Amino acid sequence: MKLATLKDGSRDGTLLVVSRNLRHAAKADHLAPTLQAALDDWDYAAPLLEQLSNELNDGAGPSQIAHAFELDPKQLMAPLPRAYQWIDASAYLNHVERVRKARGAEMPAEVKRDPLMYQGASDAFIGACDDILCGSEDWGIDLEAELVVILGDVPMAVDADKAGQHIRLFALANDISLRKLIPAELAKGFGFLNGKPWTAFSPVAVTPDELGEAWDGKRAHLRLASHVNGELLGKPDCGADMNFHYRRLIAHAAKTRALSAGTVLGAGTVSNRERSTGCGCLAEKRAIETIEQGQPVTAFLRFGDRVRIEMFDAEGRSIFGAIDQQVARYGG
Amino acid sequence: MKLATLKDGSRDGTLLVVSRNLRHAAKADHLAPTLQAALDDWDYAAPLLEQLSNELNDGAGPSQIAHAFELDPKQLMAPLPRAYQWIDASAYLNHVERVRKARGAEMPAEVKRDPLMYQGASDAFIGACDDILCGSEDWGIDLEAELVVILGDVPMAVDADKAGQHIRLFALANDISLRKLIPAELAKGFGFLNGKPWTAFSPVAVTPDELGEAWDGKRAHLRLASHVNGELLGKPDCGADMNFHYRRLIAHAAKTRALSAGTVLGAGTVSNRERSTGCGCLAEKRAIETIEQGQPVTAFLRFGDRVRIEMFDAEGRSIFGAIDQQVARYGG
Repeated sequence: MKLATLKDGSRDGTLLVVSRNLRHAAKADHLAPTLQAALDDWDYAAPLLEQLSNELNDGAGPSQIAHAFELDPKQLMAPLPRAYQWIDASAYLNHVERVRKARGAEMPAEVKRDPLMYQGASDAFIGACDDILCGSEDWGIDLEAELVVILGDVPMAVDADKAGQHIRLFALANDISLRKLIPAELAKGFGFLNGKPWTAFSPVAVTPDELGEAWDGKRAHLRLASHVNGELLGKPDCGADMNFHYRRLIAHAAKTRALSAGTVLGAGTVSNRERSTGCGCLAEKRAIETIEQGQPVTAFLRFGDRVRIEMFDAEGRSIFGAIDQQVARYGG
Repeated sequence: MKLATLKDGSRDGTLLVVSRNLRHAAKADHLAPTLQAALDDWDYAAPLLEQLSNELNDGAGPSQIAHAFELDPKQLMAPLPRAYQWIDASAYLNHVERVRKARGAEMPAEVKRDPLMYQGASDAFIGACDDILCGSEDWGIDLEAELVVILGDVPMAVDADKAGQHIRLFALANDISLRKLIPAELAKGFGFLNGKPWTAFSPVAVTPDELGEAWDGKRAHLRLASHVNGELLGKPDCGADMNFHYRRLIAHAAKTRALSAGTVLGAGTVSNRERSTGCGCLAEKRAIETIEQGQPVTAFLRFGDRVRIEMFDAEGRSIFGAIDQQVARYGG
C-alpha cells in the first residue's frame, strides 16, 4: 500500500491512501488521523488501511470510494511532516571514499566495520514539491538522493537478523546539505547541525511489498534517478555496493537504546563503484572531477535550480512519485 | 506555571498542571491533551493553563479543583515524553576545556566563536524517576546535569536579540552519556549516536516567570545540584561562566532553518571555573583528577548507583522537583 499526507493547514496533515499508479487518493483519517498515529498503532491501523488501498486499486474505481480524489503531488506534505527521529547513515562507502579521496584524506578503518550514522533534524520535514529555502547560495547547496525506511518500535539491542521485521515503510529522501558549512561544523567534532537544514520526502511512502522482488529483505535492488535542471546526475542501483544493509543499520542505531515508532532511517547517498551510473549528489560529482581534473567543474545549486529524484519499478512505473523541488532564497 | 505529564499507558501521557510547591497536580487534558499539543497552540492553551495553575496555587485549595490529586513524581513521564527535536549545546566552555586538557588536546579556536551543538535523540525521553537502562557497565555510564529550554516555533535566521521570546519553558535534564563509546564514535566524524542513548527530564517544566529574578533573559543565575549515591558531585551556578547564553544558542540552531514548537534545547553540562563548585558530570571530575593526579580516581556509574539532579530557588524550594534515577542492567 502507498500512504501520503495531505496539506490541510495543520502541522501533521491528513493521512491518505494512494492508488498504486499514484493517480488517486482517499482520505484515511477515519482510520488513523495521521501517519504517525498509524505507525503508533500499526497492527490495528495497517489492515484497515490495506483494505482501503485494495478498494482504491482493485475495486469499483476511485469514484466509488468516499473522499477519493485525483492526486496532485503539490498538495502533499512529507508522509511524516514531522517525526520523532531521523537517523541517517552513510551505507555506501564508495561515496565516502570518493569524497575523502578528493580532499586527500584516507577513510578510517573503523568506518568499514561500524556504520557511519548521524542524528538529523526531524521537527519539520518538507514535501516533495516544496521549495528548498536557503539564506545564501554561498552555503554550497546540494541534494542527496536516498532510499529510507520508516520503522515501528524497535527494541534496544535488537539482533540484525530480527531487525527487518520492524520496517513499516520505504520512502525517498532529499537530504539537503549545505556543503560549505559542513567542514567547519564537523571540525568542531559534534557532527552536523546547520549543514543539514531541511529534508524533503517523496510524495508517498510504501509498504515493503510494493517493491516486489526488488526488496530481498536486506537491500532494495532498484535504481534511484536524480536530475538537476532536467539533466541526469545519476541513476545508481540502491542494491549494489551497499556496504551496510538496512537490517545492520537498524541494529546499529538500536545498540544502546530502543527506537520509537516513526523513526526514519536513511542509508545515505546512493553510490555505485561503476562510474557510468553517475551520482546522487553534486559533492560526489565534484569529487570525481577533482580526482580526474584537479578541480571541481560542476557548481552547487543556485536559486531557481530544480532537483528531481525518482525511482521506477522494472516496468518503468514511478514507485514513490517524484521529489521535484526548486531552490529559492529565504525571504526572497 | 509548572507543567508535567502523567503516565497513563499512552505514548504521550496526560498533561498536568502542578502546584508551585510540587505537592498537587490537576489534569489539564480538557485544555490541551498533551504538552506537545499545548506548545503547538501556545497562545490559545497557555492562558487556560495559567488559569488552572492560579486556581491550584491560590484558590480554595487543591481539593476544590476537578481531578486534582497529590503528586508522586514516580507517576510522571518526561514533560515531553517524545519530542520532535532535541538539540544540545556545550555552552560552558570550562567543561570542554577541562575534558580536553585531561587528554592533552587543545580547544579549537572555532569553539569560542561558534557554539558546539549536536542533534540528539528525542523519540523517547525518560521520566525523572525512570531507571537508566544500560547493556553494560563497560560503556562508561555518566550523568550530565543541564538546564534546558523548550521552545515555540522559531523562524529561520532569527536574531539573537529576538530569540528569547520563543522560550516557553525551562526544565532540567540528565543527558546520559556512555563515555567509553563516544571516542570511537566521534572519531568517525558524524557526532554522537550510540554514546547518547536516553535523556531524562525533571518532573516538571516551568514557565520563565517561575525563575523570578534569577532569569535575566539570557542566563539563569541558579545553582544546579548533582548527587551520586547521596554524595554531592557539584553545585555550579548556571549563570556563571556560560559562554553562550540561551538567545545565542537559539539563533545558532536556527541559522539555516526554522525550529518547530516543542524543540528542546540544552546548554550542556553546567561547569564553573571556581573549582569548589564541583561538577555536573563524572567525566569532568575524572578530567580534574587526571590533570591533578595523573589519572582518574572516580569510577563511572555502576548498576544500582543512584543519580539525583535538582535546582532550588533563593528560599531553598525545589523548582523542578528532582531527577532521581537508578542505573539498571537492560533486561536484568
